[in-house]
Amino acid sequence: MKIPHFAPIPAALPATVPFVGPETLQRRRGRPFAARLGANENGFGPSPKAVEAMRVAVAGIWQYGDSTSHDLLQALSAHLEIPAAGIVVGEGIDGLLGLLVRLMVAAGEAVVTSEGAYPTFNYHVAGFGGVLHKVPYRDDREDLEALITRAHQVDARLVYLSNPDNPMGSWHDGTAIEAMLDELPQGALLLLDEAYVEFAPAEAVPRIAADDPRVIRMRTFSKAYGMAGARIGYAMGHPDLIAGFERIRNHFGVNRIAQAGALAALSDRDWLVHVQREVVAARDGIARIAMDNGMNALPSATNFVAVDTGQDGRFARALVDRLEEDGVFIRMPGIAPLNRCIRVSCAPAAELEILAEALPPALADLGAR
Amino acid sequence: MKIPHFAPIPAALPATVPFVGPETLQRRRGRPFAARLGANENGFGPSPKAVEAMRVAVAGIWQYGDSTSHDLLQALSAHLEIPAAGIVVGEGIDGLLGLLVRLMVAAGEAVVTSEGAYPTFNYHVAGFGGVLHKVPYRDDREDLEALITRAHQVDARLVYLSNPDNPMGSWHDGTAIEAMLDELPQGALLLLDEAYVEFAPAEAVPRIAADDPRVIRMRTFSKAYGMAGARIGYAMGHPDLIAGFERIRNHFGVNRIAQAGALAALSDRDWLVHVQREVVAARDGIARIAMDNGMNALPSATNFVAVDTGQDGRFARALVDRLEEDGVFIRMPGIAPLNRCIRVSCAPAAELEILAEALPPALADLGAR
Repeated sequence: MKIPHFAPIPAALPATVPFVGPETLQRRRGRPFAARLGANENGFGPSPKAVEAMRVAVAGIWQYGDSTSHDLLQALSAHLEIPAAGIVVGEGIDGLLGLLVRLMVAAGEAVVTSEGAYPTFNYHVAGFGGVLHKVPYRDDREDLEALITRAHQVDARLVYLSNPDNPMGSWHDGTAIEAMLDELPQGALLLLDEAYVEFAPAEAVPRIAADDPRVIRMRTFSKAYGMAGARIGYAMGHPDLIAGFERIRNHFGVNRIAQAGALAALSDRDWLVHVQREVVAARDGIARIAMDNGMNALPSATNFVAVDTGQDGRFARALVDRLEEDGVFIRMPGIAPLNRCIRVSCAPAAELEILAEALPPALADLGAR
Repeated sequence: MKIPHFAPIPAALPATVPFVGPETLQRRRGRPFAARLGANENGFGPSPKAVEAMRVAVAGIWQYGDSTSHDLLQALSAHLEIPAAGIVVGEGIDGLLGLLVRLMVAAGEAVVTSEGAYPTFNYHVAGFGGVLHKVPYRDDREDLEALITRAHQVDARLVYLSNPDNPMGSWHDGTAIEAMLDELPQGALLLLDEAYVEFAPAEAVPRIAADDPRVIRMRTFSKAYGMAGARIGYAMGHPDLIAGFERIRNHFGVNRIAQAGALAALSDRDWLVHVQREVVAARDGIARIAMDNGMNALPSATNFVAVDTGQDGRFARALVDRLEEDGVFIRMPGIAPLNRCIRVSCAPAAELEILAEALPPALADLGAR
């Protein structure tokens, strides 16, 4: 006997996995990594206040979380100076991306993104039968004009932009994004992924009215707040748009410990500043390691650095694989010409030192020196 | 300016919330509840080993969880004596229900359930444009024959059965469910929700081959394992069916602390037995409280008890509301004739005592005594 057939959209999907996780890679190689620098996690960790709040919250784990994330929502409202009705808390940006695509994109409708941008967004678009249109990066940045032009050409429902960008770490001025909004086609929504915004210079953050109906912004506690494993993030937009999530979201889906941790993390401004400083120092450290090895670190407004190997994607792939064998987990962009780079997450100096020691013999073996 | 329009399916949905959470109710009344007996949470709590594992896991929360939940999957495989390829871990049964509906049900296709059964399942079916067909309970149990008959009539893609049942606490013998499988229409899948199975007698658990393509079973760490706020559960089925989840699930969606807690909870058989005993005692306690107040507790194979008020849904609603005012959070079935009952979750004796004290004056005020 066979299983009943799938619905048409999932039946047509590949059994895609957007990312192979480091735990899976470790099992393949039979040993843990010595340095975990591939997933843009934040090894400086969450605020000690958040850690304490999460430890305390364990005792209440027999209770479902607050389905409205009320306390966190109020704190975010105060922090962002926008009404709580313009914010929805969800299971990380990954979860919110899936909900947004489902809310906005019918099967066969067009979505525009950049060639080489966040694969999990593409996964969700395909997952709901949307049709992806991709434009190339320009000078290692997402190309705002090309995104807009393509959005008009294909009558896009959603336009994805990550600012600062993943995987290149590059960014646009907020004013450029504000101007982009005026060029969006009627009926299209700009999805502004700001996962890394806390690491960016102030001028990279666009000024957008809380009730601007043309854009939704997503942020997370996974990066600057050091809580990737907690799965908690939020989206901001026009209250009518945010209300749409109530129709489809999993209301009791956010982990209760994550709610408590995020609330405490948000209140600890000093720790955020500390992390921001550590990340700047780590970016400099990665740049030095790159230079010592004849490679060039690109400027970054995130907690990772794209390092130009000066060679091609095949070389970068070989380097990533070789470092993986040597216990150093990093990743790389998937598409040319971005894939001439390797991508290294910021981390404490001891971990970066492991990278510094692993690189010279790896590069020598690959014939680069 | 207006927001861009929603996709057709969500555009047609109401802004439904399947359940109003107890935190929301507490904010409405301005005070916390003295007894939290409404959400079928498990106030006996998780295993101390799980608590300890979760506290330890907080330190690693800067890392994403393992996208494959590998260690937990292996432990479940050993525990259930089925291959790991027949199990998928997800963000609680609520999350898995949404994924399953999305995987199996195209817009306009038929789904069969019972009138008064789990609202969150219905929410997901509507959320993906499925058409719900409902059959009444019979003698306070889900009516297996009626479900099958209706499934044939409407050419159902999914048939939902909760065993033991929520909200009535009733159950069927496993042999009846095994027989039901033989009567399923071609192309239909039985969705067997076993959220409460650890509280049920052994004979309520059907014997189903791990590769039976006609059924998917869902279980959770929210109930017997006392980890509702962690959002972790699993589904079991034919490996081809389980593989389908890889096409659409949020691969890094499970909280890392939840993974650690579930793994530890699963290993602590003694604590599970302790909780099972406490729940039996609490069921007896609720039955005594019911009897003392002239009401009749229905037999239960779950960690809650449906108590027949002997009156109608309007009376039960008034009683639930009155108890809420008095600080006792309980719920009730939504549909007649089930809604002659109130539903009380098992809890430590001190909490049940608060119910015992609140009931006589509440019933007196409602004119029942």
